[in-house]
Amino acid sequence: MATTILIPLATGFEEIEAVSLIDILRRADIKVIVASLNDNLQVQGANGITILADQNISSITVNDIDMILLPGGWGGTDLLAGDDYTQNLIKKMNKENKLIGAICAAPYALDNAGVLKENFTCYPSVEEKIKNQNYTDNKKVIEDNNIITSQGPGTAMCFALYLVKKFKGQEKYNQLKAGLLADFC
Amino acid sequence: MATTILIPLATGFEEIEAVSLIDILRRADIKVIVASLNDNLQVQGANGITILADQNISSITVNDIDMILLPGGWGGTDLLAGDDYTQNLIKKMNKENKLIGAICAAPYALDNAGVLKENFTCYPSVEEKIKNQNYTDNKKVIEDNNIITSQGPGTAMCFALYLVKKFKGQEKYNQLKAGLLADFC
Repeated sequence: MATTILIPLATGFEEIEAVSLIDILRRADIKVIVASLNDNLQVQGANGITILADQNISSITVNDIDMILLPGGWGGTDLLAGDDYTQNLIKKMNKENKLIGAICAAPYALDNAGVLKENFTCYPSVEEKIKNQNYTDNKKVIEDNNIITSQGPGTAMCFALYLVKKFKGQEKYNQLKAGLLADFC
Repeated sequence: MATTILIPLATGFEEIEAVSLIDILRRADIKVIVASLNDNLQVQGANGITILADQNISSITVNDIDMILLPGGWGGTDLLAGDDYTQNLIKKMNKENKLIGAICAAPYALDNAGVLKENFTCYPSVEEKIKNQNYTDNKKVIEDNNIITSQGPGTAMCFALYLVKKFKGQEKYNQLKAGLLADFC
């Protein structure tokens, strides 16, 4: 089975983060499922950009995916932190030691599910809302066990490329980084 | 009237470029109209991400906008270069010396309309398809008279911030650059 990553979109998600992740993971031939939290597949982001999700998250189980990956944006993060199905899916992924990622405000939704590990990063100030206090602010991406976190819009492209390297290797990473003109990663 | 920028989306547009521009310009309180080339407002990008446009471009005239700004992606660029309404709108904007922008492959659509000025940039190799040969490849953004061009996905965020500085000034630029964690711009 192809590597499959689930990206849930909730109203108020940060658009650059979501789209950078979806776009670049698909460029690497990773299957990305974009899911909404309900039957309305049109999901509006924090800056008024509406993206069409592929399906409702309620039909997706742990066995269908290799990773769940949360974009940031405060509105979207609050909804992901408050959505029972998403929170349970995150807990089940963690129990099976499967990969979980979050960027910007979204590590809060992981903390809420009780899965955030000792070392993480997030959007500056979001760490104040997180119980775990071992916050690192000087790296674009932090990986600790099965949890991978990143900081915000300006690190989204490098976060996506980090995941490309992890799933597809150095050569694909180099190829996509050059193709994207992402010399800052 | 608020500063208004038109961003046309045609099937096959590059999603990171389009979304970085829309997102960041809106963060700067610039009015962004996202337009499709026909009555189907759901426009699918090069990497399978579908974005909902605000309206059909056919109802927009030169008097409604301060700038027209084209995202890249080869599929989208070919359609923008072949769409009569869009090409005429670009020509009319140029005749009135209004701002025109393009990133990645899209400077080709400006060359096709005959409005590209002497100095420009674009995605590396796209310059081979452009009649004007004064291509510069070592700058993220090139401004020549009323034409502003940029290179690709990795320069989209800096291109958007360049436009923020132009329309809203240095202070707003500094504020958004810091908020986006875009220290590479």
